[in-house]
Amino acid sequence: MKVLVINAGSSSLKYQLIDMDSERMLAKGNCERIGMDGSIFIHKTSDGRGKRMQVPMKDHTDAFMHVTQALTDPKVGVIKNLDEVSAIGHRVAQGGSKFRKSVLVNDEVIQGIRSLIPLAPLHNGPELDGILACEKVFGEDVPEVVVFDTSFHSTMPPKAYMYAIPYEYYEKYGIRRYGFHGTSHRYVSRHCAHLMHQPLEDIKMATCHIGNGSSIAAIQDGRVIDTSMGLTPLDGFMMGTRCGSLDPSIVTFLMEKENLTPQQMDEVLNKKSGLLGISGISSDDRDVTKAAIEGNPRAILAHDMLAYQIIKQIGAYAAAMNGLDAIVFTAGLGENQPHHRYAICRGLRYLGLKIDAERNEEMVGGKEGKISTFDSQVAVYVIPTNEELVIARDTKVIVEKLNYASTEDKTIVDLEDI
Amino acid sequence: MKVLVINAGSSSLKYQLIDMDSERMLAKGNCERIGMDGSIFIHKTSDGRGKRMQVPMKDHTDAFMHVTQALTDPKVGVIKNLDEVSAIGHRVAQGGSKFRKSVLVNDEVIQGIRSLIPLAPLHNGPELDGILACEKVFGEDVPEVVVFDTSFHSTMPPKAYMYAIPYEYYEKYGIRRYGFHGTSHRYVSRHCAHLMHQPLEDIKMATCHIGNGSSIAAIQDGRVIDTSMGLTPLDGFMMGTRCGSLDPSIVTFLMEKENLTPQQMDEVLNKKSGLLGISGISSDDRDVTKAAIEGNPRAILAHDMLAYQIIKQIGAYAAAMNGLDAIVFTAGLGENQPHHRYAICRGLRYLGLKIDAERNEEMVGGKEGKISTFDSQVAVYVIPTNEELVIARDTKVIVEKLNYASTEDKTIVDLEDI
Repeated sequence: MKVLVINAGSSSLKYQLIDMDSERMLAKGNCERIGMDGSIFIHKTSDGRGKRMQVPMKDHTDAFMHVTQALTDPKVGVIKNLDEVSAIGHRVAQGGSKFRKSVLVNDEVIQGIRSLIPLAPLHNGPELDGILACEKVFGEDVPEVVVFDTSFHSTMPPKAYMYAIPYEYYEKYGIRRYGFHGTSHRYVSRHCAHLMHQPLEDIKMATCHIGNGSSIAAIQDGRVIDTSMGLTPLDGFMMGTRCGSLDPSIVTFLMEKENLTPQQMDEVLNKKSGLLGISGISSDDRDVTKAAIEGNPRAILAHDMLAYQIIKQIGAYAAAMNGLDAIVFTAGLGENQPHHRYAICRGLRYLGLKIDAERNEEMVGGKEGKISTFDSQVAVYVIPTNEELVIARDTKVIVEKLNYASTEDKTIVDLEDI
Repeated sequence: MKVLVINAGSSSLKYQLIDMDSERMLAKGNCERIGMDGSIFIHKTSDGRGKRMQVPMKDHTDAFMHVTQALTDPKVGVIKNLDEVSAIGHRVAQGGSKFRKSVLVNDEVIQGIRSLIPLAPLHNGPELDGILACEKVFGEDVPEVVVFDTSFHSTMPPKAYMYAIPYEYYEKYGIRRYGFHGTSHRYVSRHCAHLMHQPLEDIKMATCHIGNGSSIAAIQDGRVIDTSMGLTPLDGFMMGTRCGSLDPSIVTFLMEKENLTPQQMDEVLNKKSGLLGISGISSDDRDVTKAAIEGNPRAILAHDMLAYQIIKQIGAYAAAMNGLDAIVFTAGLGENQPHHRYAICRGLRYLGLKIDAERNEEMVGGKEGKISTFDSQVAVYVIPTNEELVIARDTKVIVEKLNYASTEDKTIVDLEDI
């Protein structure tokens, strides 16, 4: 079975075609600047073929036409016929309290995703466009599945997901912690348990997805009990351009002083803060690292703050779980910036954590492995994440169950089984 | 030496007269609803005399006239003559980066407090009114000292006090973490070290001031390295009516949806959130406790959230200090609600903390003592706070140094010496 995985943004569309027998990626690509001048289409196959071209794409349907052409193209394609695509899996950011599992797309699901747009206007809208465009291009016979960024976190207890604001806002707008990066936390936590030869249920784990956007999840008894992102992906600790959680008075103070609308304020906190805001250099940690090595004081401050905030977040979750057995680092910084991992682990010596400095330096560029010493009381792993594979796996399971299902509606699959 | 301690609010004025030879309170009182209809004046002496009367007070100067009358009154007074008041100590909330120590009031200090009003409009303005009114009533010959809520926290490193928002806001407005309740954290941390028969410098300590307003400080090497309140006393974890730190998107989301001005939003987050907002019952934990015992689900949720957030905050500071030797509970809830202390300590067993359940139940109503077991790896104390005494002590030290000082300006005293 071949599954096409789609990650649609407002002006972009990323895709991967995965062969589920081998779980290998066959081809992947990206449509950029959809609906804008200078749209770009990039396509690569796993055996090194590909193309990159500037071509007008007015909407997601246009973009999908290029995707299907490239996938079946004699030169750069990987399948003969679109029929070979058995199912399509979509990433959707916000599943709210409604979607606690991955689901097969039907009218009700589309309505549900639409109803959650107010909670995630920048994500759920474009993702829905992607689903609808896909249906147009592939036809209704190809099953589509949606996998939510939030659903792995849906096991959080109320004491973790409620904010201490008037309760009516929870009832009226659904304001609560949802968490994001769920597919990533799910993938690395299960894989870490596998590497540790222990059931996930027996491991108190903090999974650290540190990239341009970053979040940490606390996983106990095999379930997320807390996570750092909240109502939106702005919550938690500092990221590339995001500030993380704040004294809320800062928001109102700045809006008054700088005469900003809520939307302008959001822009500042989402796009101009974090590593970029402190360093004044870049949101890309490689640039900040370069400047820090050269002695730039604000780059050094940005790094000090980042490590310190992550240390505190892991410390808070060690307390939330009343102990900590394992830490996983994943995503851009987590996989490739050993100096951050080192600084963080050094701050957690009180938990009996001992980092193997040499192993830590080795684990870069997609390598996976343990970076704590044999006698460390907390096992620390670097595990490259693979959100697309999780989406493809969920899609496969749901579609296979569908094929075997009776006439009953059996579209929601218990992912705990996977 | 007798010192009058003043805590002025926008419509209130609290005072205590303390005899510094015995460090005993002689009399205390409160002027309420100053500048409003139905002003009330309450005065009590330590030997049980006192009065309470409704009397018009149009401003702080008016209020001080009643204070001085009561203090020297033949029936309810404690001194014969105002001359017996050797010095006056004022509490001021926000000392910014300018005031890292307690200082003698002079024109420059008054200017400094005034310049910090934008950072703490609800506090520094009325407090300045109190200082100026005091000068009018007592004359310029009685030295006045100000003790800042922020100054004990001024040792925090940048990685703890900087928010990950654009750096220019720090430069332009001084937006950073300042922390509050400094006199309380200072008092209980030193007293805890005294009870432990160890130098404070050797103890990694979390001091938990849990009252209507709440904050926790992390104290290492005898200095605050982090604290939960931030730019304002809204930051940190949930309190009686305050929400603590938030996903900042919640602020902008609610302002848009509910069409709120920054000021109205501040009002919601400061006055209608916290225990009150979640329980829907009260900001007073005694009421919430009563409801929780009766099974009210939102009261139970409010309590679960409070303990959980404090557990995470202490856990974060254990990580920040790379270990934890002692915890102090103080203020309203900290001193008098053993069920919260129990829930918090049970969540910290992973640090080797063992609570003595019986001792914990005993420590209420102003008692001080240890509530951890003899073999607990973290010592836990209940210590009633005494901010007025700290203010009076600082005032005494500064005034005494002043009396001995040469003609040089020696108004700033290094409080580390105290």
